[in-house]
Amino acid sequence: MKEFEVIKEFFTAQPVNRKDVAMGIGDDCALIHASDHKYIAITTDTLVSGVHFPEDTPARAIGHKAVSVNLSDLAAMGAEPCWISVAITLPSVDSEWLAEFTAGIFELTEYFNVQLIGGDTTSGPLSVTITAQGTVPKGKALCRHGATNGDWVYVTGEIGEAGLALQALREQVVLSPREMQHAMEALNYPKPQVLAGQIIREYASSAIDISDGLLADVTHLCRASTLGVNIDVNDIPIAPVLIDRLGEEDAARLALTAGDDYQLIFTVPDTNRVALETELNHANIKTSCIGQMNTSQEINISRGDKLLSFAESGFEHFS
Amino acid sequence: MKEFEVIKEFFTAQPVNRKDVAMGIGDDCALIHASDHKYIAITTDTLVSGVHFPEDTPARAIGHKAVSVNLSDLAAMGAEPCWISVAITLPSVDSEWLAEFTAGIFELTEYFNVQLIGGDTTSGPLSVTITAQGTVPKGKALCRHGATNGDWVYVTGEIGEAGLALQALREQVVLSPREMQHAMEALNYPKPQVLAGQIIREYASSAIDISDGLLADVTHLCRASTLGVNIDVNDIPIAPVLIDRLGEEDAARLALTAGDDYQLIFTVPDTNRVALETELNHANIKTSCIGQMNTSQEINISRGDKLLSFAESGFEHFS
Repeated sequence: MKEFEVIKEFFTAQPVNRKDVAMGIGDDCALIHASDHKYIAITTDTLVSGVHFPEDTPARAIGHKAVSVNLSDLAAMGAEPCWISVAITLPSVDSEWLAEFTAGIFELTEYFNVQLIGGDTTSGPLSVTITAQGTVPKGKALCRHGATNGDWVYVTGEIGEAGLALQALREQVVLSPREMQHAMEALNYPKPQVLAGQIIREYASSAIDISDGLLADVTHLCRASTLGVNIDVNDIPIAPVLIDRLGEEDAARLALTAGDDYQLIFTVPDTNRVALETELNHANIKTSCIGQMNTSQEINISRGDKLLSFAESGFEHFS
Repeated sequence: MKEFEVIKEFFTAQPVNRKDVAMGIGDDCALIHASDHKYIAITTDTLVSGVHFPEDTPARAIGHKAVSVNLSDLAAMGAEPCWISVAITLPSVDSEWLAEFTAGIFELTEYFNVQLIGGDTTSGPLSVTITAQGTVPKGKALCRHGATNGDWVYVTGEIGEAGLALQALREQVVLSPREMQHAMEALNYPKPQVLAGQIIREYASSAIDISDGLLADVTHLCRASTLGVNIDVNDIPIAPVLIDRLGEEDAARLALTAGDDYQLIFTVPDTNRVALETELNHANIKTSCIGQMNTSQEINISRGDKLLSFAESGFEHFS
């Protein structure tokens, strides 16, 4: 059973009864009515040692990444991050480790003006669970289900370098020391697209962040919107080092199926394209149009005229 | 190093800069300005298998207890619980286990009109982290630091039965099957004092819930209020089965130092005593006056005129 279905089956058994809950389980964040004008967006993500990061990952990277993946969910809703709670389970108290871990957290909280408001410290196998909260104006929250037929599909940044780092750690590919350093930076210190999310929310019809992999996450967006998509791999902003090291075909496969990119996928109605691209250019945010939504409910990946098929559909626990 | 100090040293390194944060780290909940009239109270607690509950604990009890300990923190602030997020890490997907686990969660969320709004499911050693949120009117939030000299110290319910269950599981005491069943119910299915918290907030000057043990938690309250306390063990509502099975002295020791009671300790100015006791009686909530705050900054535990000393001061991780 896939993680997605596990969550859905058991955790949605209780109907949403509270009037102050605008969006419950099923998107990047829940949305709570905070006032007449804004929602509070809430998300929770856990990183487990050996599952979500290699066991020898530096403490600073673990702190940074745990915050990043949560802020990325807020970014995907178009929310401004405000507060986080950090629950950490660790085998023993190591002051040096804790100093580095919290330094990794505070790098991001200071940059984004986010306050660490609480948490819990427990003894056990290493894992970190962060709950992050932000605010988003009503009518501007970006949900997965908002895409409409004909909307253009965009992605921010470059794709695949975190996945390449994991392949290199598993000795499936050999990188130069400099390439390895750059790829490890992408894996360990992902940059949540918070500013992009706040610009996109003015123009986009839907959004999701890439945590499970581009293909898996665009599939989540399509299912939520009851639509299909055509994506041309030639338009995907694959990190050049992937193509150098793996060749075009394997690079595309990795970019589509590896996770941990924490870029945003979003859909834009044709009438908003020019305005959005102009504003993103002004903000110096790289985005690429990779395809278009359609009514087929199929996920078609092509290279030019040639349809491709992919067996793997991204990172899933328990699969 | 004690858990309390671990949290304090590293996680409070970032100053509170956001104006919307009324209370950061250091109390049972953080408090966020939600509107002119109310705060949102936020708390996070993790339960790790083998640390916070025995490994063979039923799934329903784990779900129930994980919600209870978080609602207990909201109760200690006088907050009305509203929304929870559940992050669960489990070794494998077991549908029967998940059905029982979520049943344990939903028992409490339905009773208290709380909405499960999100979470995360990951693969790894069993642990549960819940973030719970509630609302409390401004001016009514119960903090640890609010006690004043001469305030009376109260505790809800009965103390020590969860600790007795743990002793019985460790074969340090023998209980009858019926006593064991009752004690296990106290350990596995603690009842968060949500209603009590909402009544108390109208009259009390401070409050804390008992998770680490009566002695440890009353010490936290005293330190936060920069006061001391005199407590007479004859006034502590020790569960009668403790006295039957352990004798007076060991029963008092266990009641003071075992954790997992999830009752509330609170302080009440003399002028509010009668009104509070009357209202709690009407609501059928058992409370006991166990002592009085003073300026000594010492925690004095006596039996009548005889001062007692306790080496252990409650449940601490990593100690």
